Amino acid sequence: MTNQTPLRAAVIGAGYWGPNLARNFRNGPDWDLVAVCDLDAERAAKVVGGRSTVEVMTSTTQLLARDDIDAVAIATPASTHAHLALAALEAGKHVVVEKPIADSSRQARKMIERARELDRVLMVDHTFCYTAVVAKIRDMIAAGELGEIHFVDSVRINLGLVQADVDVFWDLAPHDLSILDFILPGGLAPTGVSAFGADPIGSGQSCVGYLTLPLAGGTVAHIHVNWLSPTKIRQMVVGGSKRTLVWDDLNPQQRLTVYDRGIDLDKMVDGRQKVAANVSYRLGDAWAPALPEREALGQMAAEFAASIREHRPPRTDGEAGLRVLNVLEAAGRSLAGNSGLTPADSMAQVNV
Amino acid sequence: MTNQTPLRAAVIGAGYWGPNLARNFRNGPDWDLVAVCDLDAERAAKVVGGRSTVEVMTSTTQLLARDDIDAVAIATPASTHAHLALAALEAGKHVVVEKPIADSSRQARKMIERARELDRVLMVDHTFCYTAVVAKIRDMIAAGELGEIHFVDSVRINLGLVQADVDVFWDLAPHDLSILDFILPGGLAPTGVSAFGADPIGSGQSCVGYLTLPLAGGTVAHIHVNWLSPTKIRQMVVGGSKRTLVWDDLNPQQRLTVYDRGIDLDKMVDGRQKVAANVSYRLGDAWAPALPEREALGQMAAEFAASIREHRPPRTDGEAGLRVLNVLEAAGRSLAGNSGLTPADSMAQVNV
Amino acid sequence: MTNQTPLRAAVIGAGYWGPNLARNFRNGPDWDLVAVCDLDAERAAKVVGGRSTVEVMTSTTQLLARDDIDAVAIATPASTHAHLALAALEAGKHVVVEKPIADSSRQARKMIERARELDRVLMVDHTFCYTAVVAKIRDMIAAGELGEIHFVDSVRINLGLVQADVDVFWDLAPHDLSILDFILPGGLAPTGVSAFGADPIGSGQSCVGYLTLPLAGGTVAHIHVNWLSPTKIRQMVVGGSKRTLVWDDLNPQQRLTVYDRGIDLDKMVDGRQKVAANVSYRLGDAWAPALPEREALGQMAAEFAASIREHRPPRTDGEAGLRVLNVLEAAGRSLAGNSGLTPADSMAQVNV
Amino acid sequence: MTNQTPLRAAVIGAGYWGPNLARNFRNGPDWDLVAVCDLDAERAAKVVGGRSTVEVMTSTTQLLARDDIDAVAIATPASTHAHLALAALEAGKHVVVEKPIADSSRQARKMIERARELDRVLMVDHTFCYTAVVAKIRDMIAAGELGEIHFVDSVRINLGLVQADVDVFWDLAPHDLSILDFILPGGLAPTGVSAFGADPIGSGQSCVGYLTLPLAGGTVAHIHVNWLSPTKIRQMVVGGSKRTLVWDDLNPQQRLTVYDRGIDLDKMVDGRQKVAANVSYRLGDAWAPALPEREALGQMAAEFAASIREHRPPRTDGEAGLRVLNVLEAAGRSLAGNSGLTPADSMAQVNV
Repeated sequence: MTNQTPLRAAVIGAGYWGPNLARNFRNGPDWDLVAVCDLDAERAAKVVGGRSTVEVMTSTTQLLARDDIDAVAIATPASTHAHLALAALEAGKHVVVEKPIADSSRQARKMIERARELDRVLMVDHTFCYTAVVAKIRDMIAAGELGEIHFVDSVRINLGLVQADVDVFWDLAPHDLSILDFILPGGLAPTGVSAFGADPIGSGQSCVGYLTLPLAGGTVAHIHVNWLSPTKIRQMVVGGSKRTLVWDDLNPQQRLTVYDRGIDLDKMVDGRQKVAANVSYRLGDAWAPALPEREALGQMAAEFAASIREHRPPRTDGEAGLRVLNVLEAAGRSLAGNSGLTPADSMAQVNV
Repeated sequence: MTNQTPLRAAVIGAGYWGPNLARNFRNGPDWDLVAVCDLDAERAAKVVGGRSTVEVMTSTTQLLARDDIDAVAIATPASTHAHLALAALEAGKHVVVEKPIADSSRQARKMIERARELDRVLMVDHTFCYTAVVAKIRDMIAAGELGEIHFVDSVRINLGLVQADVDVFWDLAPHDLSILDFILPGGLAPTGVSAFGADPIGSGQSCVGYLTLPLAGGTVAHIHVNWLSPTKIRQMVVGGSKRTLVWDDLNPQQRLTVYDRGIDLDKMVDGRQKVAANVSYRLGDAWAPALPEREALGQMAAEFAASIREHRPPRTDGEAGLRVLNVLEAAGRSLAGNSGLTPADSMAQVNV
Repeated sequence: MTNQTPLRAAVIGAGYWGPNLARNFRNGPDWDLVAVCDLDAERAAKVVGGRSTVEVMTSTTQLLARDDIDAVAIATPASTHAHLALAALEAGKHVVVEKPIADSSRQARKMIERARELDRVLMVDHTFCYTAVVAKIRDMIAAGELGEIHFVDSVRINLGLVQADVDVFWDLAPHDLSILDFILPGGLAPTGVSAFGADPIGSGQSCVGYLTLPLAGGTVAHIHVNWLSPTKIRQMVVGGSKRTLVWDDLNPQQRLTVYDRGIDLDKMVDGRQKVAANVSYRLGDAWAPALPEREALGQMAAEFAASIREHRPPRTDGEAGLRVLNVLEAAGRSLAGNSGLTPADSMAQVNV
Repeated sequence: MTNQTPLRAAVIGAGYWGPNLARNFRNGPDWDLVAVCDLDAERAAKVVGGRSTVEVMTSTTQLLARDDIDAVAIATPASTHAHLALAALEAGKHVVVEKPIADSSRQARKMIERARELDRVLMVDHTFCYTAVVAKIRDMIAAGELGEIHFVDSVRINLGLVQADVDVFWDLAPHDLSILDFILPGGLAPTGVSAFGADPIGSGQSCVGYLTLPLAGGTVAHIHVNWLSPTKIRQMVVGGSKRTLVWDDLNPQQRLTVYDRGIDLDKMVDGRQKVAANVSYRLGDAWAPALPEREALGQMAAEFAASIREHRPPRTDGEAGLRVLNVLEAAGRSLAGNSGLTPADSMAQVNV
């Protein structure tokens, strides 16, 4: 196989995300989209569109049995990921799967193991890791431009209808966790997890969630995910000893702002005094790097192709998916354990 | 004493906040600023300024012994609040004290008790409660315009030099807590407290702090305070069953935005399906109420005068200060108790 | 022909805008994209993409001779619009043409006349008129919600490379002019035109342009178009006697803001005094209507189909295109006539 | 007189701006505010405030006769500037006068001439020139950081009640003109002026105004002033061959943004092709310099003192005031001459 010949792909699942995958596997030189597969043929046909020779299929068994398909992209509910991915790997296909990689770390480990044994690429579609802004953040951190990381704070809130099978942590936090895994030098490795979830509307699921992740060296990552806000906020602050950056994903004109000043430790240790009254809004220059506007999913598809051709793990491989899953599972244990709240009666005690 | 005659005030403490108090007790019809008192006479003189007959004093004992002073505003370190306020009350003065009301709830209760016994006004300068935006939020909630409150999320981050005597919770969170106390119908009454603090710079104090406060009925309030960010974020989101509001205090052109749509419960309970792919940025109209630009501290001074003249508790009385203090103390106990983290080894267990 | 059968379209021109047209004539129930035509077959093939049966053609003569094509969308340089559109009309096709409709009003009138005689739809792709925000503005004005229009100010600046054949007025102002034509109750009907162009880089073309368009009743429209700014500004202010709206097209979270307060005439005529010192930022509530996020070009294609099926002029018909062209031509005459500048020597006279 | 002794000042006029002047001449080491003078003693007394020994006066004759006053700040209506300033100069006082310097260039020249003959400082309070942001812009241009200036575009719109004696040009444009005079290397020296004013509310004055000022070398400055907008816009774009800056005065967090990229001339001259379809929002990095938050008026007062002590012209001297006035007068002539509009009948001619 040379770089000249496109790889042949099929998309499994024509629901929410499938059409986006199909579009990106259809355009560009890397991929030739052979088929779209869904139990609902009409839905798959709609993804394929008119005047097209991309095939519509309804059986994954038949799909995986074909030998004119090199890889599959799986965009079905999380509970089916492991089953479908394992079948595809057994059929010799390379696999990219939507996040989260699976609904249990046990399944994820099995997928990773089989992919290794069968020498196939197993990738997770951590889409945000393929945006220009996340690439820039990763590069800046790796180059030491922020200095030591002090804290990461991520807010991802928007209106989302409650789902029967997953809470807000499982729905939204994989985005933040996969980004953390991608940008932090050692990947996502918290020393503990504290999760708090609220369900003020009585839906049976956490709709508002807070995740606190202490990291090595006194650093902390914190994630706020929320389905109940009618306005979107997509903001991440990465504070470092040299510089701090603010990523506001809803400001396309200036997504990323890097502040040239952190805390001056010497001054602090000596003085330990309150900062003066007339604090200005910002004490150092800010810098907004130019970022190309490109579709992240196209970059993801390109990385999938490159990892297959270069016989190497993709940047967001199964291990990355597993690290994200581990935190989600630990969060579930924290929730089950009452989120470590200081009990209310200790409050009552001190009231007048 | 009639409404015509201004009340006579003195400011104790000419440091960070004292000059602001002096300016506001000097202007307007309610107050006549008699003296500014500070151990450092030069600092006090600078607050008083030239061509002025406002007196400079260095002894609080002499100040409190004067019978031409009706009230004092105390802007000294928190550890001195109780001592000075009690002395002032004993001397028959009305007292407004900077936040936090004291450095322990025991002291705060004593202050409240003595003020009641001596029939003097005891007020806490919860300045934000006197801004037009907080007044508007309180009114909207009270009028039921947001419906039931689902969550409150507050972020207050900026560059602040580390202090020897207080951590980031004691420095910044009183603002958020006093606002919550003011806007929530029943005042600040969490059913528990979970606090997490990080000290990534090794300063010996929490520099990054998260406070989770479950409230009755499944509601949650969450506060993020942070000294390590070179850019300011001052944002509060109040989510309700009918409307949600976003207060961005650094956008003077549009501090407050009210979103007309919350979650449609019926649709949710029936459907429980993922919201459609082409979610628009916002699904309902937004509304930005006109807010007068006025100095909050001037409103605070006016309320202090009104409460004295009308012989009634001020809107931010000693009890409000105590409720804030109770949460700060409970946060301290949570921090001491390891913040209820799910231990890291349970993470390690599930790693490959 | 019933509503059930899609209309058959071809796109002529596979350059800058052609791919967008092709995409929108390809999706949805209204259209069946039969062919893409370009002198450069490779470019056309790239637009068509892989696994597609959309035909690639290089001859417009052959294309127009086909009887399985109902309509063509012309996205070639402006100087070729009239020739191609007239040929297509003669061949019985309905025509939508990119803006500006032609490179001279004489040609545009010929196109309008022939379309009328041949009973074919002639439409101009004034894309912005099919955005949700412009539709909302038009509706608000038509419903009298702004009151009488006092002024319209439009700014459209971004980095654009200088072109050999058109200046910044011909490149960018058609957007603003077509929007004005669409939203103003009587269409675009200035009582005069004043144009000023600057070419500070010596390119031989105006790169910075200002257009002043007095309208009936003392109203004025003003347009600033600019190729030399590395940052985009896309802002239109429509001031009315009751309300004023600000459209910031680069703020997807709040594109349109409507301010509830205009000028209080009575107060003004009586008082004629300077507004007080402490003017607040905004004296009335603001309102940001919810706007659906939809692709304008898809709406344009739908309107093209509907006008053909319903045998009626489209909302942006040839006359609209001609009105825009008339202003561009008048602007050219103003530029040739020295833009009506008060000569510099009258300045010199009054200098010391 | 040494640097140690403050200069003695009086403020004439206690209306809109007088209190701000009084406050700034009262604070700081440079000035000792001796008196505030206004025909309305009560208004002057209110500016002075309680517990103050600053004198209240109602006669400028008596004021100017005093020998314990070194300088006066005149904040009365423009029509009285010349008379008062000349009287003050004759009395040996240094003078700072509000903008515009006078209501005719003839008067302004007389003021400049007398100040020179009497060896007194004559300054105009072009307040914006003393802001940190304008100082930064001036420095950047002077240092060649923007390259050659290509265009300057200024927008200053807000709700302002119509005045009996001045139109929107005389009310607002002096701000923009004084800034241009300050930042442009050779000062404000347009080669012509074109002004257009609209009065859509029938007030008898221009309420919406556009000023076009061609400058040497193909550069253009353009100013939009507007009283009829309920929302403020305060934006200036300075486009240069190397960099372009955008000043948004209503964004205190990031007032000034400098874009690192202008137009690449070589590429342009060779190619002369339309920029590619997927233009990103911004093609170069942006930079937001840190700016101290300080009160401009305090800097103005300091410069006034320094120019007196150092026996040199202030940065905004009478000549600067005259250059601004010259443009206002030329704008008036342009308005009187029909603003050089291309007549409407030439439009009618080309209509169908």
